[in-house]
Amino acid sequence: MRLESRSDCPINLTLEILGDRWSLIVIRDMMFGNRRYFRQLLNESEERIASNILSSRLKHLLEEGFVSKREDADHKQKAIYSLTEKSIQLLPILAQIGAWGRKHLDCSKALSIRAELLEKGGPELWERFMDELREVHLGKKRKIKGRSVAAELQAAFEKVSKR
Amino acid sequence: MRLESRSDCPINLTLEILGDRWSLIVIRDMMFGNRRYFRQLLNESEERIASNILSSRLKHLLEEGFVSKREDADHKQKAIYSLTEKSIQLLPILAQIGAWGRKHLDCSKALSIRAELLEKGGPELWERFMDELREVHLGKKRKIKGRSVAAELQAAFEKVSKR
Repeated sequence: MRLESRSDCPINLTLEILGDRWSLIVIRDMMFGNRRYFRQLLNESEERIASNILSSRLKHLLEEGFVSKREDADHKQKAIYSLTEKSIQLLPILAQIGAWGRKHLDCSKALSIRAELLEKGGPELWERFMDELREVHLGKKRKIKGRSVAAELQAAFEKVSKR
Repeated sequence: MRLESRSDCPINLTLEILGDRWSLIVIRDMMFGNRRYFRQLLNESEERIASNILSSRLKHLLEEGFVSKREDADHKQKAIYSLTEKSIQLLPILAQIGAWGRKHLDCSKALSIRAELLEKGGPELWERFMDELREVHLGKKRKIKGRSVAAELQAAFEKVSKR
């Protein structure tokens, strides 16, 4: 249960839920890395997130409706996590954070290429990517046809990583 | 001094510096409320920020180059804080956070009106507002003429607050 809000300002309320070091990192990994299992989120973490922190963040994100969890049909013992409409709509925030970080901080080329493409693609690309995420995470039929943004971002990342 | 970064991803690096509960709140108050003095940031805080937290956040923001501090020419005993180019460019992130919060959380009408106007105005309005902030905080001559965005946002806020 959340403590009472300190103010009803949209920026304050958002930061009260997401203004910690890890929540957006977990959402980033689900969104851009399509990591859907606990072990995958843990073992593939660039930031080497600790197991107890990942647990607590996933619990928080579930409680706040940013993530849903179900039994994986293929692996009964494994839970699969999905983004929700609420978290899919965080993409523009993540895109702006990426654009700002790329400009002002000392980022690696490989880990910046997706931020660069999102920045250059702008809101039109974000809409296409959110449409894809709705298909993958919510099972909704895609409204926008054409190449996959996820595949494009992944290919660019792999190309730069290999250099 | 900052601890070593956990990864050089632009989103991670940004959250390592700004992913706490208060840093962006202080920047928000300087940006939208034009609060430039410690006492003002403390006493006018909607979220009733504690004095020791405000001190530590201002110190952090100074160290990281988001804020500059100088003696006020008119009040020798008072320090005046200014935004920097680095923090002025956080506006698109704050605008997207405001837009998302307004849609998904239970915000007050009065405290959401500025977020609503920023969302509707889009990148063109953000550019105008950043141009104004550069004049106010960095002493740079405005490049874009026309009505003041700050005044417009403030007037809308006051109008809704009075209802």
